[in-house]
Amino acid sequence: MNLSYLAPAVNQIPAAIRLAQDYVDVAREFITEPCYEYIAGGSGLGRTATANLAAFDELTICPRVLRDISGGNTQVALPGASLAHPILLAPVAYQTLAHPGGERETARAAHVTDTCIVASTLSACTLEEIAAAAADSPKWFQLYFQSDSAITTDLVRRAESAGYGAIVVTLDATLQVPNQRALHLGFRFPQQLVASNLERYAANARRADIAGESRVLHAAPANAPTWKDLERLRSETSLPIWIKGVMHPDDARQLQDFGLAGIIVSNHGGRALDGAPASLRALRKIRNAVGNDYPLLLDGGIRSGMDVFKAIALGADAVLVGRMQMYALSVAGALGVAHMLRLLREELAIAMALAGCATLRDIRSATVE
Amino acid sequence: MNLSYLAPAVNQIPAAIRLAQDYVDVAREFITEPCYEYIAGGSGLGRTATANLAAFDELTICPRVLRDISGGNTQVALPGASLAHPILLAPVAYQTLAHPGGERETARAAHVTDTCIVASTLSACTLEEIAAAAADSPKWFQLYFQSDSAITTDLVRRAESAGYGAIVVTLDATLQVPNQRALHLGFRFPQQLVASNLERYAANARRADIAGESRVLHAAPANAPTWKDLERLRSETSLPIWIKGVMHPDDARQLQDFGLAGIIVSNHGGRALDGAPASLRALRKIRNAVGNDYPLLLDGGIRSGMDVFKAIALGADAVLVGRMQMYALSVAGALGVAHMLRLLREELAIAMALAGCATLRDIRSATVE
Amino acid sequence: MNLSYLAPAVNQIPAAIRLAQDYVDVAREFITEPCYEYIAGGSGLGRTATANLAAFDELTICPRVLRDISGGNTQVALPGASLAHPILLAPVAYQTLAHPGGERETARAAHVTDTCIVASTLSACTLEEIAAAAADSPKWFQLYFQSDSAITTDLVRRAESAGYGAIVVTLDATLQVPNQRALHLGFRFPQQLVASNLERYAANARRADIAGESRVLHAAPANAPTWKDLERLRSETSLPIWIKGVMHPDDARQLQDFGLAGIIVSNHGGRALDGAPASLRALRKIRNAVGNDYPLLLDGGIRSGMDVFKAIALGADAVLVGRMQMYALSVAGALGVAHMLRLLREELAIAMALAGCATLRDIRSATVE
Amino acid sequence: MNLSYLAPAVNQIPAAIRLAQDYVDVAREFITEPCYEYIAGGSGLGRTATANLAAFDELTICPRVLRDISGGNTQVALPGASLAHPILLAPVAYQTLAHPGGERETARAAHVTDTCIVASTLSACTLEEIAAAAADSPKWFQLYFQSDSAITTDLVRRAESAGYGAIVVTLDATLQVPNQRALHLGFRFPQQLVASNLERYAANARRADIAGESRVLHAAPANAPTWKDLERLRSETSLPIWIKGVMHPDDARQLQDFGLAGIIVSNHGGRALDGAPASLRALRKIRNAVGNDYPLLLDGGIRSGMDVFKAIALGADAVLVGRMQMYALSVAGALGVAHMLRLLREELAIAMALAGCATLRDIRSATVE
Repeated sequence: MNLSYLAPAVNQIPAAIRLAQDYVDVAREFITEPCYEYIAGGSGLGRTATANLAAFDELTICPRVLRDISGGNTQVALPGASLAHPILLAPVAYQTLAHPGGERETARAAHVTDTCIVASTLSACTLEEIAAAAADSPKWFQLYFQSDSAITTDLVRRAESAGYGAIVVTLDATLQVPNQRALHLGFRFPQQLVASNLERYAANARRADIAGESRVLHAAPANAPTWKDLERLRSETSLPIWIKGVMHPDDARQLQDFGLAGIIVSNHGGRALDGAPASLRALRKIRNAVGNDYPLLLDGGIRSGMDVFKAIALGADAVLVGRMQMYALSVAGALGVAHMLRLLREELAIAMALAGCATLRDIRSATVE
Repeated sequence: MNLSYLAPAVNQIPAAIRLAQDYVDVAREFITEPCYEYIAGGSGLGRTATANLAAFDELTICPRVLRDISGGNTQVALPGASLAHPILLAPVAYQTLAHPGGERETARAAHVTDTCIVASTLSACTLEEIAAAAADSPKWFQLYFQSDSAITTDLVRRAESAGYGAIVVTLDATLQVPNQRALHLGFRFPQQLVASNLERYAANARRADIAGESRVLHAAPANAPTWKDLERLRSETSLPIWIKGVMHPDDARQLQDFGLAGIIVSNHGGRALDGAPASLRALRKIRNAVGNDYPLLLDGGIRSGMDVFKAIALGADAVLVGRMQMYALSVAGALGVAHMLRLLREELAIAMALAGCATLRDIRSATVE
Repeated sequence: MNLSYLAPAVNQIPAAIRLAQDYVDVAREFITEPCYEYIAGGSGLGRTATANLAAFDELTICPRVLRDISGGNTQVALPGASLAHPILLAPVAYQTLAHPGGERETARAAHVTDTCIVASTLSACTLEEIAAAAADSPKWFQLYFQSDSAITTDLVRRAESAGYGAIVVTLDATLQVPNQRALHLGFRFPQQLVASNLERYAANARRADIAGESRVLHAAPANAPTWKDLERLRSETSLPIWIKGVMHPDDARQLQDFGLAGIIVSNHGGRALDGAPASLRALRKIRNAVGNDYPLLLDGGIRSGMDVFKAIALGADAVLVGRMQMYALSVAGALGVAHMLRLLREELAIAMALAGCATLRDIRSATVE
Repeated sequence: MNLSYLAPAVNQIPAAIRLAQDYVDVAREFITEPCYEYIAGGSGLGRTATANLAAFDELTICPRVLRDISGGNTQVALPGASLAHPILLAPVAYQTLAHPGGERETARAAHVTDTCIVASTLSACTLEEIAAAAADSPKWFQLYFQSDSAITTDLVRRAESAGYGAIVVTLDATLQVPNQRALHLGFRFPQQLVASNLERYAANARRADIAGESRVLHAAPANAPTWKDLERLRSETSLPIWIKGVMHPDDARQLQDFGLAGIIVSNHGGRALDGAPASLRALRKIRNAVGNDYPLLLDGGIRSGMDVFKAIALGADAVLVGRMQMYALSVAGALGVAHMLRLLREELAIAMALAGCATLRDIRSATVE
């Protein structure tokens, strides 16, 4: 396999990495520039991808003193998984872009760090391979509805068989303007990347979301999921169903009323509508709309444990990290991803201690403004 | 004809152009720097031209999911034209500055893309030539009142004969501070540029709005149109009359009461009063002032389909693009303008799909903030 | 006289100057860098000098259409002068820093442009020389109270004899932190500069506000004027008395109650307290405090006719330009100052025409926000 | 002793220093870059350290005129010290990082400038040496609770014996993310630095807050002080007890109710929680919470006398300077610190005079916004 877009990953953590965020820069030495830009950037001019980060930087966490935080922990129970900590691995497609081992490496990191991994429909490894590598750590399967509903049904059945604990339906990536800077730098989707989960379904295998083809757009509105699709999915599985890609409070309330397990607030990391608001801004409105107890995750813009703290303070039960796993994966494979997760957890623990929060629940009443 | 300020346009679209906005940069290779700056810049220090763009960037579009947008379209009916899409070609003077074929090329692009073209009084080609090239696509004529009212009357008569469907009276360009940077770069108005529509009226032909002469100012308050001029115009034609260059809600209401067909909110692309607010900001106030149904167009700052979406969300029925046509014209003539329009339409369609809007009317209730 | 800090002024206006503001940059070619920085900068780190400019840039002027502005003018009647236009020459000390002819050149420019000049106590030419050069154009005398009150009294008597129409008492420059950047560049106050007005009063002559001496501070609180000083001044002259250097609404109201002719809102161009708010911001509050009719001038930050418009819209009856006259003086002496004033007037006229204002009074109700 | 991270301090003040703030830049010539960055930076990415400065720059001081400020002074009486001026030397650890003489130099500067010095538990010189050098000027002792409470008790007893007038308990530095940029530049804590106060207590001596070790974190939540610790301390000493490191109004009120002498609002100069708000912002809220009379000091971000003025206007009784003493110490030892303090006092006096404030109490009602 030709992986010329990658430098070999290392077997130990570079000394320059002291904060989780350091993976952002160090990864540049391990991935070619066009490929890095494809991973790092957003659709169009990348406004939303930038906004996702800025929304965190605008907030501060007020320290507290003399608070008793003995016996604290970072546990959270969600439909589909009880977690030791609130940081999930987001469903990032085609992880062989970052490391030859792809999602298997990521899953191994999930395993050793008690992290919930969300495997993508568009993974380079099969969902069965990922499940095997993740072993007994919690794992969810991200589902793109397929044009042929029999294939969708089969994917869900396979996820159940492989031990996935929840289905995550992504709704927000039906149409995209390509990442302008990545294309300008000459990014082309490597030919060897294949959606392994879909290979067995002849002629159906969807290629990645972006390509160097002459058409500006790809994917078609015909692919957009409908309430009927959700209805059928619900009838076919007893797994909890999460919806990923919700940004509007009205949509969130409607999905809540529909009886789904929970919502992942996300703008697809700024890779869908360039010009969408930061997901963190949407989170606050959606938490207000659905009440205190409905399960909400936040995806987009997490670069530190302080960011995790901020997202929880604004209403998230847990968060997903996407690009961060790709950066860490490119640097040191499973070791890198595990290290990145450890740093995020340590940074979160520090923020909790300094803000006087013993549990994630305490964070909700912290002063973040 | 000496067109040394232009590089030859190309016969195919450069690969670097994937978004409509890419024409802004690519055009730099096709026009000399002083001339590019004259087109791109605004009066004085260009504050308003910059503000026009920034006003769009400050807004976000909230994505929606699971909305039924089947059967959607981008049609809009305006006084003087029923449009397949809400993007009009603004009346830009002297288009031979961007391409030897001038407005004829632009009109051909309008024809093949079902776009309404607004021909300028100060066009390099005659209004009759433009109408012929635009064929059966919608077309409006932009009118500068002339000192000799007989000439004004004759221009209107000619526009009617040539098949123009509306008259657009520009009110905001009576006095200008020149584009400081363009002059600094040595911009001089090319001698061969002539206001072809006016040539037949001896000694009346107005030269362009800017020149390298020693006088800082040009044009005179004596030229400023009055209510009497509008009264006379209305008595002389049965075509719908639009007013271009309105920024204040009180002015808008007064023109509405006067019974004119509609208003184009515009600060002349930042080429009149340097220090005027962004036209997008004025749009919101004017829409509030004139009610939901009075026809309003927005001119100034459109660089993408997302921008078109935002303008419509804030109250516009449709928008005009000025500099964008000059950039595209310089790159590939009629082909470039048509391609730029197609990109804008595709981007608008994506924004509509991702924001769950089936029609332009739906956009009005989208969450843009 | 050694004027090595100056390049010779020119006899014609450089072609690069098309806007009044262009003098800011062009002057760099006519004054050595340390001296330019002394003129251009503010005290300390120059925060207030910068804020003075930024306050204007944050405001926009909303254009109007179809307004009848025939018969418009820019006249304004103030206590101590009836002015053809609302732009006064601020009392800038030691103008030989900018041109060998000093204030005589400035006064000649005032004469030919119908501009009111405010001569400084600390002028390089005597107040009598300045009055002679200004001829029959309006002129005011700026007074620093002297430690010896007999000298103060004599200065006022001389001003009356020389035909000055008002006394402007400066209150805000008793203590200064020096311009850090100017000193860093090596600025030293030229030895040949002398306060000509004060030379006759032996041992009293105050040197300029800044010097390269080892002491960080100069001037002493003992010099700070008191209400008693104002009382005595009022008893000694029948000329209208303006107070310059007021920034707080409470101070303004107290001075109004005391019965003084008017107030010049000023932070000494950012040359006194580094960290004071922009004078334009103070203007709005002070106008609210003193009511619509009390005479108020604005000093600080004017670089264009649009700025003059904005100041008047926020409550000023007229404005003073300080650094602008030094820049123009350095470039072309009296010719430069006259040209700069003409450009400001033209720019103001354009702003008025485009904003539909026939008189300065109309500007008060213009939409500036 | 190997002090290769330091250039020799000078015996006279460099001419480039005219404002207190100039020490920030000049110090770069006297400390190696990694060490300078360790002193200058904050934890993590330094967001809070930057925010501390920005909070001052966003505020302005409105000048006043004609106010009688005769007989003014800068005195303030605090629990534990009556001060000639409101600028204290913050407890900065290991000052031999800036000068071979360490805290002895700083204490000498305190002595000659009537400044209250707060000696750190983690000082390079012993608290007895510091007290001797400070002679009869006011001095406080900053206390880190030690794991072995007998040591804590002994430290307090020693402070009492040495003549310290108050105990300052630091609560906010239990956990830190290291200064990322300093480590990247290669900063390592010099081996020769020792916490001299603690050396006598074998095996207990805490090393500095940061180190080049492989662990990302250091210090442990077990070290976090509790209410019990405060209770015991109060029972063991009759000295006034100040609490340093409070940022939340609820914490401040609770400490006030507990009966402590006063609070130092501080985020540890941005060296604890990266992402905490600026201490100046917290000050305003805490002053509102504790009422007008409860003693409050402000620590963090002071670079000028104007900053001192602003802090007092927002509710501080006095301020502490930390990094500034390290910069001045590195440049010229005791002479530098004394000069820096003199400049701050002069700048404060100027601000008071120009804002019409005769006393610190007057500053509270000044217009700072």
